[in-house]
Amino acid sequence: MRKGDHVIPIFNGECGDCVYCKCDNSNLCERFRVHPLRSVMVNDGKCRFSTKDGKPIFHFLNTSTFTEYTVLHSACVVKIDSKAPLKKMILLSCGVSTGLGAAWNTAKVQAGSSVAIFGLGSVGLAAGEGARTRGASKIIGVDINPNKFIKGKAMGFTDFINPNDSKNPVHEIIQEMTGGGVDYSFECAGNLDVLREAFLSTHEGWGMTVLLGIHPTPRMLPIHPMELFDGRRIIGSVFGDFKGKTQLPHFAQQCMRGEVNLDEFITHELPFEKINEAVQLLAEGKSLRCVLHL
Amino acid sequence: MRKGDHVIPIFNGECGDCVYCKCDNSNLCERFRVHPLRSVMVNDGKCRFSTKDGKPIFHFLNTSTFTEYTVLHSACVVKIDSKAPLKKMILLSCGVSTGLGAAWNTAKVQAGSSVAIFGLGSVGLAAGEGARTRGASKIIGVDINPNKFIKGKAMGFTDFINPNDSKNPVHEIIQEMTGGGVDYSFECAGNLDVLREAFLSTHEGWGMTVLLGIHPTPRMLPIHPMELFDGRRIIGSVFGDFKGKTQLPHFAQQCMRGEVNLDEFITHELPFEKINEAVQLLAEGKSLRCVLHL
Repeated sequence: MRKGDHVIPIFNGECGDCVYCKCDNSNLCERFRVHPLRSVMVNDGKCRFSTKDGKPIFHFLNTSTFTEYTVLHSACVVKIDSKAPLKKMILLSCGVSTGLGAAWNTAKVQAGSSVAIFGLGSVGLAAGEGARTRGASKIIGVDINPNKFIKGKAMGFTDFINPNDSKNPVHEIIQEMTGGGVDYSFECAGNLDVLREAFLSTHEGWGMTVLLGIHPTPRMLPIHPMELFDGRRIIGSVFGDFKGKTQLPHFAQQCMRGEVNLDEFITHELPFEKINEAVQLLAEGKSLRCVLHL
Repeated sequence: MRKGDHVIPIFNGECGDCVYCKCDNSNLCERFRVHPLRSVMVNDGKCRFSTKDGKPIFHFLNTSTFTEYTVLHSACVVKIDSKAPLKKMILLSCGVSTGLGAAWNTAKVQAGSSVAIFGLGSVGLAAGEGARTRGASKIIGVDINPNKFIKGKAMGFTDFINPNDSKNPVHEIIQEMTGGGVDYSFECAGNLDVLREAFLSTHEGWGMTVLLGIHPTPRMLPIHPMELFDGRRIIGSVFGDFKGKTQLPHFAQQCMRGEVNLDEFITHELPFEKINEAVQLLAEGKSLRCVLHL
């Protein structure tokens, strides 16, 4: 890499040498799976940030990108086409790769299949975009915030369910809409009750639920072991199962050619000093990506 | 089918017409997934057995084979080669198909891979035979009954662990033996603590645990949702994912050619009137298959 290269920072680094990086079935690099809030530079175990009085500040998710300048290990930096528009490409750093990759690489959504997506933030909408670009014929969006359906509609979702609009559980509504359940569901809410609905929304025999939400509670999976005999599957997905350094340059090309619609994810632009306002918009469910400029 | 045909009864029927039977990814026939203890003939919803005073007796698992004569729907009867030895072929009705198919069809064990099997009854030993015939290089048997290791050794298992012999959890022992964990584990014990050990025994990033045991407790899966982000997978398997009527005739041929070793599964032969003794041997972990003859 050289000064001026267009790059994407990735939290899910790829060293290229470890047993995971050399395995086709995993994108979990052994060296760069660190504590999200306590990342350090792996070579010397130290931080590159500190307070004014010299107290070290940990890196965040290997990247620390809530800054004007940052220091990353080269395993966490992906060089992309120099013509790639950085304002959009940064979407590939996390949410869009995570959601879209979950549909492409984890679930391997097939043309003509049916999909339900629980939680329509950037990750959920990106999973929908992944399903759309793979030719899914039914893409059902589920959210308790009906404003999310406007964006979902613009992005090719075919149906919407607001759980607050019905007394029946969502999985029953979806089973009825789809003749038994969807082929794939994506849990992008970080809520275990939602996860169970997502699980039961898939068709017995072959349905697959992809877990994407962050679940901070100590509760275990709300699935009885015998329910796995109904043929439904559940699987986790990190960074959309993309190997960042290997696969993102090609993914960026696909986005540049318009095969993937990134425009809809950018909802706001604000000057950098309004970063707290940007975070607030996100917390209120009003924004997807807010671009900050200097 | 005609009188005198050699057939295998299967509890997991295959009607051939339903959405599951027409789907490559499922062997769960819509018409023949009935309550195991309350099966009836599906065409008229009635039983073909009754007590002396006319009270109906339910069929057991669609087959009711603890009898000299029984009545089955043709969807639950598989015609096989007329030269097939029935004494061995009956093993394909349940345990051997379940375990071996879990390795072949569910996990799709690959040559050179490593496998751990928890619970060395017929299902577990058959999973080992499935792994062996697919070329697994390490097949670790786990059981608290060390007598099981004799049979395991005869069937090609390479290593054994008795959890009672060590204070360390089994998954730690296996991780140490295999440089991080096995590629596949099979839970054949019907115990949730064992299931968790089986889950943690697989390698992060790509390990797959196949659930085969029957879990009669109300406890949910002992897996935290965030643990799915470590790249381990868990999946249930019914009847080894074999479509019985379609695939068992070929499987029977493979057994007849000696590609699969069935001999080791037959440990006892008893006259039919000693059926209770046969059940007792099974309950005590002393037998695998006991052949009853008239």
